[in-house]
Amino acid sequence: MSGPLSGFKVLDMSRVLAGPAATVLLADQGADVIKVEPLRGDVVRAMGGGGLTPGFLTANRGKQSIALDLKSEAGIKIVKRLAKDADVFVQNFRPGAIDGMGLGEPVIREINPKIIYVSMSGFGEKGPYAHKRVYDPVIQALSGLADLQATDETDRPRMIRTVIPDKTTGITAAQAITAALLSRERTGVGQHVKVAMLDVMIAYLWQEGLGGLTMVGEEHRVKRGQRSKDLIYETADGYITAGAVSDAEWRGMCKALDREEWLTDERFATPRARGMNVKQRLEMTAEVILTNTTAYWLKRLDECEVPSAPVLSRPDVIAQEQVQVNEILSEYDHPGLGRVRQPRPAARFETTPTNTEQQAAQLGEHGVQLLQQAGFSDEEISQFRESGVLGTPPT
Amino acid sequence: MSGPLSGFKVLDMSRVLAGPAATVLLADQGADVIKVEPLRGDVVRAMGGGGLTPGFLTANRGKQSIALDLKSEAGIKIVKRLAKDADVFVQNFRPGAIDGMGLGEPVIREINPKIIYVSMSGFGEKGPYAHKRVYDPVIQALSGLADLQATDETDRPRMIRTVIPDKTTGITAAQAITAALLSRERTGVGQHVKVAMLDVMIAYLWQEGLGGLTMVGEEHRVKRGQRSKDLIYETADGYITAGAVSDAEWRGMCKALDREEWLTDERFATPRARGMNVKQRLEMTAEVILTNTTAYWLKRLDECEVPSAPVLSRPDVIAQEQVQVNEILSEYDHPGLGRVRQPRPAARFETTPTNTEQQAAQLGEHGVQLLQQAGFSDEEISQFRESGVLGTPPT
Repeated sequence: MSGPLSGFKVLDMSRVLAGPAATVLLADQGADVIKVEPLRGDVVRAMGGGGLTPGFLTANRGKQSIALDLKSEAGIKIVKRLAKDADVFVQNFRPGAIDGMGLGEPVIREINPKIIYVSMSGFGEKGPYAHKRVYDPVIQALSGLADLQATDETDRPRMIRTVIPDKTTGITAAQAITAALLSRERTGVGQHVKVAMLDVMIAYLWQEGLGGLTMVGEEHRVKRGQRSKDLIYETADGYITAGAVSDAEWRGMCKALDREEWLTDERFATPRARGMNVKQRLEMTAEVILTNTTAYWLKRLDECEVPSAPVLSRPDVIAQEQVQVNEILSEYDHPGLGRVRQPRPAARFETTPTNTEQQAAQLGEHGVQLLQQAGFSDEEISQFRESGVLGTPPT
Repeated sequence: MSGPLSGFKVLDMSRVLAGPAATVLLADQGADVIKVEPLRGDVVRAMGGGGLTPGFLTANRGKQSIALDLKSEAGIKIVKRLAKDADVFVQNFRPGAIDGMGLGEPVIREINPKIIYVSMSGFGEKGPYAHKRVYDPVIQALSGLADLQATDETDRPRMIRTVIPDKTTGITAAQAITAALLSRERTGVGQHVKVAMLDVMIAYLWQEGLGGLTMVGEEHRVKRGQRSKDLIYETADGYITAGAVSDAEWRGMCKALDREEWLTDERFATPRARGMNVKQRLEMTAEVILTNTTAYWLKRLDECEVPSAPVLSRPDVIAQEQVQVNEILSEYDHPGLGRVRQPRPAARFETTPTNTEQQAAQLGEHGVQLLQQAGFSDEEISQFRESGVLGTPPT
């Protein structure tokens, strides 16, 4: 364990995606993450045979697993014991549920006054949605992300077909946890950190997306600029993207397309004019690009210094040279899964390199060992197993 | 300044979006961020009259600004002096450019051995794309994000109409910077942290999106599951989202739609079967939902405990009750802009609250003051102004 978070211990009660996506980043960076699961396991395990799926791996690699009956008094007692020397406690149950289990913030803080206690939720603790179960599309609908994706063709809003809110909440929470640990390092004070998915998405989209709502009184203008085609052009044999923002890039674009007469067209004479006439500009560009192949255009655009790229299919994404050069992916054998491919954590730390090729635990794999470390006797541990409080890994 | 990062000083040479989005999060959390701008200012300023735009505000609130002629020897000397007592140095020029300016990592480290030096880039330092200018759509095209958004209607890939790669890179870098600071707090060792947008997006999309590429040898299967409609349903007067994953939710859905005969339809008998027959299921659901209003369906679905929500337009996003309850947004008067609305940082820290209602600086607003603090004499500062090395704010 050599990552920047080496030496920190995270007790992770979180499930499904947003929570595990936060703690897996901490595990990648060297933190010692203990995943506390119910006896049937995190629901994401259920989507695969032996309790291990590609999705579970990516969100839980490098974590230890203990399976507990969290409805039993003994199970709760074990969690409290594990919390004693943890630096961070993470939970993403619906508001109030963790208090009902007897593991609310005041309880854990009494056991461990300096702990960073993290509550993740869909909507926050109060308000009309607070009690509801959260799914990623619900946050996309309520945050404006789906509205942003409405197009001129039909004006129908669209979902993004990947769970942006869950994943962005994960990184946001990981940053907040790290900041709280850093603050504690200097002040000695632990605290309660709260992260709601809806808040995350509004903050995330504000920069560009919801940003049109910044000027109070001008909210009616926000739909402007979303009506044009996007920057994907169909070629004779595929799709590319290309964009000309500066005057120099626009000159390059006209040259690449062999349409130098556009340079004297007053509709496109300045960046501002090109912005005003975006619809015509993109349509005229699309018409030309359809007449030749992807390879032809990428070469021409590159020669004329216009930022451009092929729109890659997902298998082509991992095959591209830049991904190889960056060593983003590694392939390795994983017990119970076979040959797998995983990305390394994106940020590279020169002197505290992050973990790669980590394994995901079987449900309850580290239970006995964790209880021994926590000071339970062999007799107690046997009792927990026999009474069904402690789950044991599948054999 | 009371946030968790209070007491840390960040010297921020970064421009446009991904870099400023990282450092604004640090500023929101109490770090002292000094934005070093070229004499003409960060290009994002140019999009508004007085150098202040809503987009600039959101990415730069709470930072101090100094404007310098970075092509002059004196300008570089000033940056070096400012770096002496900084905790973090951030730059997002194209690979090699910062070394050419005389502010590369070895130079800065010699001045300040314990600094966290952060290099952000589009593609990393080597490889076929490394030298190219990066725009957000290029990363969407190369990372598979655009491919993910291809639909059954046309099979055409689509861009996401907000800059997901830029913003995700910002949060990822903020987390990495915070982790490097935390590591330094314990070890005393500073380091070089590198973050490339392409790497960020592949790591981000792997969880769900590129995750189908995890199993080596089964890459051909990745297009499965993207062919169905998304979870947006048109009602008689708008759009809603609704999803039934568990058996209980499916029973609720059939009841809400008054289609209890679907409960005995073997195509939909189990979660697995409903997954296999997703296309028919969503089409049949859509047909029913079109027959009544948004208000009617949201009430029915809620009564039957089916997770659901209206698909809100962007103005409706900020008007909804949950956003009010969560106090996500605040309105305040901003010099040079007028009445503005900004989101607070998403994560809430109980004992080290983050900053809100922060202002963005005019170009060069804090130049003189920063140079005085750095120990330059009044005479030297006058000379910098007269020779055009130090820009002065617009009056």
